[in-house]
Amino acid sequence: MTKTSPSATLSINGERLWSRLMEMAKIGATAKGGVCRLALTDLDKQGRDLFCDWATEAGCTIHVDAMGNIFARRPGADSDALPIASGSHLDTQPTGGKFDGVLGVLAALEVIESLNDHEITTKAPVEAVVWTNEEGARFTPAMIGSGVYCGEFDLDYAYAREDDEQTTLGSALAAIGYKGSTACGAHKLGAHIELHIEQGPILEAEDTEIGVLTGVQGIRWYELAVDGAETHAGPSPMKMRKDPVPVLASLLPEIYAIAERAGEDARCTVGVLNASPGSTNTVPGRVTASVDLRHPDAAILGSMDAELRDLVASSSTERCPVSLAEIWHSPPVTFDESCIQSISKAAASIYPEFRMMVSGAGHDSVYVSRVAPTGMIFIPCKDGISHNEIEDTKPDQATLGTTVLLNAILDLAKVA
Amino acid sequence: MTKTSPSATLSINGERLWSRLMEMAKIGATAKGGVCRLALTDLDKQGRDLFCDWATEAGCTIHVDAMGNIFARRPGADSDALPIASGSHLDTQPTGGKFDGVLGVLAALEVIESLNDHEITTKAPVEAVVWTNEEGARFTPAMIGSGVYCGEFDLDYAYAREDDEQTTLGSALAAIGYKGSTACGAHKLGAHIELHIEQGPILEAEDTEIGVLTGVQGIRWYELAVDGAETHAGPSPMKMRKDPVPVLASLLPEIYAIAERAGEDARCTVGVLNASPGSTNTVPGRVTASVDLRHPDAAILGSMDAELRDLVASSSTERCPVSLAEIWHSPPVTFDESCIQSISKAAASIYPEFRMMVSGAGHDSVYVSRVAPTGMIFIPCKDGISHNEIEDTKPDQATLGTTVLLNAILDLAKVA
Repeated sequence: MTKTSPSATLSINGERLWSRLMEMAKIGATAKGGVCRLALTDLDKQGRDLFCDWATEAGCTIHVDAMGNIFARRPGADSDALPIASGSHLDTQPTGGKFDGVLGVLAALEVIESLNDHEITTKAPVEAVVWTNEEGARFTPAMIGSGVYCGEFDLDYAYAREDDEQTTLGSALAAIGYKGSTACGAHKLGAHIELHIEQGPILEAEDTEIGVLTGVQGIRWYELAVDGAETHAGPSPMKMRKDPVPVLASLLPEIYAIAERAGEDARCTVGVLNASPGSTNTVPGRVTASVDLRHPDAAILGSMDAELRDLVASSSTERCPVSLAEIWHSPPVTFDESCIQSISKAAASIYPEFRMMVSGAGHDSVYVSRVAPTGMIFIPCKDGISHNEIEDTKPDQATLGTTVLLNAILDLAKVA
Repeated sequence: MTKTSPSATLSINGERLWSRLMEMAKIGATAKGGVCRLALTDLDKQGRDLFCDWATEAGCTIHVDAMGNIFARRPGADSDALPIASGSHLDTQPTGGKFDGVLGVLAALEVIESLNDHEITTKAPVEAVVWTNEEGARFTPAMIGSGVYCGEFDLDYAYAREDDEQTTLGSALAAIGYKGSTACGAHKLGAHIELHIEQGPILEAEDTEIGVLTGVQGIRWYELAVDGAETHAGPSPMKMRKDPVPVLASLLPEIYAIAERAGEDARCTVGVLNASPGSTNTVPGRVTASVDLRHPDAAILGSMDAELRDLVASSSTERCPVSLAEIWHSPPVTFDESCIQSISKAAASIYPEFRMMVSGAGHDSVYVSRVAPTGMIFIPCKDGISHNEIEDTKPDQATLGTTVLLNAILDLAKVA
């Protein structure tokens, strides 16, 4: 152990971090090298227990709230100061990888271990946080643990969410012993910095190892529907049909064009396509498509929304009515300036080639940012692939990201 | 009963026909006015039993072959002559109507009843036929009873077909007591005339009550697939994606254009659309679409096929490969000239405004035409709607079609 001058850049123990990532990945390991550790299952409990054991051994006290969010606290010199937290989630997709979420949790724990190693006392407490059910794979919606924490969802609503086998989230939480008694949100945070793999290709494509996030893209989800008249594929002449498929086909390029006009930060995805009744020899009576529009700028996202609505209105005919239902709207998030500053300062001293960027995906930090100053750090993942068993990142990348995290946390928590 | 001169146009008993159509529709009647009488169920057995009772009362002998196809014979003067048959099917879609198939069976029975009423002895025997499992709703493929009869399918293959509950067609046939011992196809037919509702809008649109069919459209089925790379809807910039949806969207109008260039007898239907994995926030890794191309002229259908293959080949890129798998090919059918003549002659004397047309849908007559001279008659159905509980046709239309059928059959069977 080296006692380091507080002004210098602090290092972490990359081998310990990596060996813990690999140890955690054994819980729910899949044959193809991924992880299936669905929220609030016995495997999730094993992962949580392992985290709590490590945090306790590192001298932390453990606090669990009513949503099963876990706060592992390393005390600070000022017991009245709000904790500087870092965290993410331990649950995975059914065919998930070793790093999505888990990296953020174990990096936060590594920050605490490193502070111990360097024998540094911070002014504010430092916490490593595990947020419940980020993935939404077992219980929808996603990010429900941080969502209840920030007041987006009621606790009763969350408890009543059911998985495919009609098990409620509340009963699953009790069954694994992680239903704490403290009201969600009562445990306040002074700041929340989340380290995460990018889950996209930008850093890798630019050969950059660190992304400092300024915010998260706003997202709008729609269901687009075109109605026609179901009829047999043989007897009806083409001109007598009310076929919704050609209408959808002519709409799709114009929908992508909305994103193109909105510049390189815009995204447009049609992930779901359906024709009903879905029979080779039946002209569909209805076709539907999901539309996912994203932009980090609320005004531009608003323009994209207006363009889509105009397009749908002008495409609708009596013959084949076109309709658009908005399913979800998550406004863009702008992270806290002081958090961005602390992360940028840390990154500048360790890896000056870092880039500023926005997250295209949602994270627990989106909800946490509503109630605490929040920031995020990205490291690359191989080929931009995530939510996949081949999700991968390198030990050096995990170490670099966690080193930036440690120094940003220290800047915020301050040396006592 | 009126004894009519053989040279005059014979009439049928429209009230008897209609009351039997309504009586049969009670077996499997649905709340919405349709019929659910899936092949080889207890309801199908009840329908078959009712048909056999009526046919027996009309003096017919009943013959059931190994596929459960039922032949009810009214003897002719020449016991060596092959029977002039007419028939269709009694099974329905799960939400089917009262007329699809059933009309053809009960009209054939009405032909026999009318010959009795008019006390006419024909030279050749006259038969009313029930073909097994035309719809393909319980056991795929469709038209398997006539298909085995004509040699398209092996009997063993047919017996081994399973429904959704793993019941085989062979065991279902035995369970309802309609597994006959005669080899399929051994019971030869001198001709086969099928009366059917059009299942399309042409007759109604042209205000014409009778269609005389020259044949059945050729059909080619394909699965079109576009591959891309599954990725998260947020992080990946548009230019870095391999999104198969825009590729499919640009292909679809060109596929419909193939049918447009091939003239008004051509049909193109995209009935199935799928995006995989089918998640709003995931760029699909693969999209698929069914393509159903039809034309009554084999050469033109062949050109459409070639155009589709060229289009797919020229659209495929390394970034998003496009592939086309042919699923099924049913060549166009040209009905027998003498059958068309007999039907046209009968129609001309009863309803001179009849039109010649081709069937866009498959029927038992497609398979039967391979082993016996075959023809078909269409009457309109309301709004061209079929395979639907609201399927409808008028008593006068059923009477008119059956009158044409009777006179065509008499022309073929000849008065003794």
